Amino acid sequence: MKDDIATLWGGGLDPSSGKTLQQQLHTKIRTAILDGKLVDGARLPASRTLANRLGVARITVTQAYDQLIAEGYLETRTGAGTFVVAGSPDQLFQTNIKYVSRQESAPTNHRHILLSGMPALDQFPTANWARTTSRAMRKLNTDMMYHNDVMGYAPLRRNIADYLQASRSAVCDASQIMVVSGLQQGLFLLANAALKPDAPIILEDPGYDGMLASATATGHPIRYTGVDDHGALPPEQAGGMLVTSPSRQYPLGHTMPHSRRLEILAWARTTGSLIFEDDYDSEFRYSGRPLNSLQGIDEGERVIYGGTFSKSLFPALRLGYLVVPKPLIERIQKFRSAIDSFPSITGQIALNAFMEDGEFTRHIRRLRIVHAKRKNLFTNFAHTQLRRFLDFQPSDAGLHLLAYMTDDMVKAGIEDKQLAELAQTAGIGAVPVSNTYQFAPKQQGLLMGFANLADEKIEDAVKKFSSAIYKVLNTTTN
Amino acid sequence: MKDDIATLWGGGLDPSSGKTLQQQLHTKIRTAILDGKLVDGARLPASRTLANRLGVARITVTQAYDQLIAEGYLETRTGAGTFVVAGSPDQLFQTNIKYVSRQESAPTNHRHILLSGMPALDQFPTANWARTTSRAMRKLNTDMMYHNDVMGYAPLRRNIADYLQASRSAVCDASQIMVVSGLQQGLFLLANAALKPDAPIILEDPGYDGMLASATATGHPIRYTGVDDHGALPPEQAGGMLVTSPSRQYPLGHTMPHSRRLEILAWARTTGSLIFEDDYDSEFRYSGRPLNSLQGIDEGERVIYGGTFSKSLFPALRLGYLVVPKPLIERIQKFRSAIDSFPSITGQIALNAFMEDGEFTRHIRRLRIVHAKRKNLFTNFAHTQLRRFLDFQPSDAGLHLLAYMTDDMVKAGIEDKQLAELAQTAGIGAVPVSNTYQFAPKQQGLLMGFANLADEKIEDAVKKFSSAIYKVLNTTTN
Repeated sequence: MKDDIATLWGGGLDPSSGKTLQQQLHTKIRTAILDGKLVDGARLPASRTLANRLGVARITVTQAYDQLIAEGYLETRTGAGTFVVAGSPDQLFQTNIKYVSRQESAPTNHRHILLSGMPALDQFPTANWARTTSRAMRKLNTDMMYHNDVMGYAPLRRNIADYLQASRSAVCDASQIMVVSGLQQGLFLLANAALKPDAPIILEDPGYDGMLASATATGHPIRYTGVDDHGALPPEQAGGMLVTSPSRQYPLGHTMPHSRRLEILAWARTTGSLIFEDDYDSEFRYSGRPLNSLQGIDEGERVIYGGTFSKSLFPALRLGYLVVPKPLIERIQKFRSAIDSFPSITGQIALNAFMEDGEFTRHIRRLRIVHAKRKNLFTNFAHTQLRRFLDFQPSDAGLHLLAYMTDDMVKAGIEDKQLAELAQTAGIGAVPVSNTYQFAPKQQGLLMGFANLADEKIEDAVKKFSSAIYKVLNTTTN
Repeated sequence: MKDDIATLWGGGLDPSSGKTLQQQLHTKIRTAILDGKLVDGARLPASRTLANRLGVARITVTQAYDQLIAEGYLETRTGAGTFVVAGSPDQLFQTNIKYVSRQESAPTNHRHILLSGMPALDQFPTANWARTTSRAMRKLNTDMMYHNDVMGYAPLRRNIADYLQASRSAVCDASQIMVVSGLQQGLFLLANAALKPDAPIILEDPGYDGMLASATATGHPIRYTGVDDHGALPPEQAGGMLVTSPSRQYPLGHTMPHSRRLEILAWARTTGSLIFEDDYDSEFRYSGRPLNSLQGIDEGERVIYGGTFSKSLFPALRLGYLVVPKPLIERIQKFRSAIDSFPSITGQIALNAFMEDGEFTRHIRRLRIVHAKRKNLFTNFAHTQLRRFLDFQPSDAGLHLLAYMTDDMVKAGIEDKQLAELAQTAGIGAVPVSNTYQFAPKQQGLLMGFANLADEKIEDAVKKFSSAIYKVLNTTTN
């Protein structure tokens, strides 16, 4: 441990900065960890020592430490002190670790498509949901029936703000939370409210086709920025809005390191652009440290944070949220009140009751365990049965796996679209990776959902898929 | 009764028309009534006689009669036969009968504004709603959690289609029903899905400002058509989409007679235009015959019908519906899946359970009685207390009354905006009529809600309003 810790983050605290000393200290320590200045396992000074060094009250230091412990950056070891949690950025950002992800848009036809981004819907606590919903509905009063705040139901927004502050280090208060029907609606509202008519929407390539659909619907020009092992590259365009998924790039799964986050934020500042941070399934990380949101680093000036309950509860709930920078709130309210108002108060009060009762956090904790187990089961069977056809990429998070097609398959002339259909017929949610590319050279592979397959069905589904591939290969070779 | 009834509607039935003989007969009789060819109290031929005359089975006639009885066009008198119900178009279309109406858009600020289009929210059967919702939620299964039909939940759409066929003579099946969050969303989706970029949206002037907000948000050019005592005039523009409220023009309250409906439909056909029929509170008609929808006359070719549960249940439920012409379904699905998908399945299954249980129709029947009573109470007190200031227009329907300012008030330099604030302070939902005008010469008056005022509070609210006006007048005169 470097003894002179106060020098690590370049300068002391500033009482006139408009932020509390505790907030400043918290930010400085977190940044030092993310930048690698405070390395894995490093011991922090005793709170009394650091307080003396900085000339602040001891409680300022202990509260900053407590928050960082709650966020998973620090841990205490009894009798030994406070340490940086192992699971360094270097480990998390290794280029061969690829995360995979979701498919959110509703298909417009009525064919039953098994999408790859589904959580374990069989684990949803229906009885508890019905109970809390029923209690909420019995309290439905005329004020709620008459509710007319396009931002959403105030108690729910407070719960969401608390959740985001605690779990995603978001810098926000409840007044900035807008309850939306999903992230595609979020993007659509934002683009209409915040962008000049000719300002571009810049998407990741490869990227999520749901966001492309929404961006196209706005009528704004669409541009693309490439993706490397650190996630989205800072765009060449000036102005407009970049849509990015820094927690886990969709579809490639890279986590954006702190250095790239700073580059992207610098791009936004110098070009006068906005960033829409799509944090679609950040609840499901199976190892390592939670990464702080881009919105939290930026402190909410140029970044609009978006999240959804589609993954943590179920997709047809159609509820998500934006954290809107304060200068944009009035404009987005105006546009939204013209075209949609707000999602039904009934779903909002039901979800609020579910959160108030602690059911929401209990369910997420339970899902993490179930999903981790299914991921392991699926990975094991897939490695045995599918190795010849698919090259599974390691993953520490999310609801699906990315697997590239092997050279053998490519040589046999099989396309990932065909493969996705075979997987779906076998009962496995699957999306062809090639669908996610626009101009970048297309990869062939699958995004395969493991989370919504009951434990006992995984082996059978993988075997069926494997047999189906063999059958096609034989037909092709004959 | 004219004996040769078959000649009334010009020609017989056509077995090759693609419609059942029963449907054809039903339409022909209804049209004859609406056109005044079959007058009030006219006796129809016995079913056997007419069947023989037309050369069809007797059941064809009895079923057509039964449907017209259910719709309120015909009635049976024991031992005497089947008659046209009294309450002729001529009566309903008298030019001095003016209906008033609603205000649906959510204000974007947080001030509590008493809007004028609220139903009796205190009568909402919260316990029954909680019970049916709870039952629906206990049945929430993974198929529902995974629901991905942007048109909405199929059982709910079937219930809505049945309701519209029975109560509004809509010509539709469940495949055409799209569940939306409200009529402003409906217009927004339709304009984006169905119109060419430079095609105008044509609004009634005076008209509903919520529709103006939604139309503005689409970016389409906005044009206006005037309103006379028969409702909207056929527009001068060609192409685009006319938004009209033929059941009760907002804000003036005229009901569009059949002849004008035919003119409007002819305009749409000859100019290749669409019509959006805003049928916002057709549930609440306190006397006379239910009028058939424009969509029903057109048989759904060029008319998109839109209705809402905001008036029949409560506004924050945020659920309504469109009847989409079949050729437009795919386009509207595509646009909607990009920006919004569908309203939460939770609200949809709750509403469906409420309809399945018969709670919905029971509630509407009860509301009709409550609203009629409150309308009478309000009218009586208003005539006593407010006659000097406001000239109340007769009304047979809806949730508010239209009252023009008297000459005394106008001379005193009072504006309706100021008057609306006084009404709201007194607890009466009120909207200034001048707000609803664009280019037509502005009238000064109020749209005043009577339905959401508890019986025992009406007298006091009217008195408070009256005192407040006196106070302002004294200040003004001094």
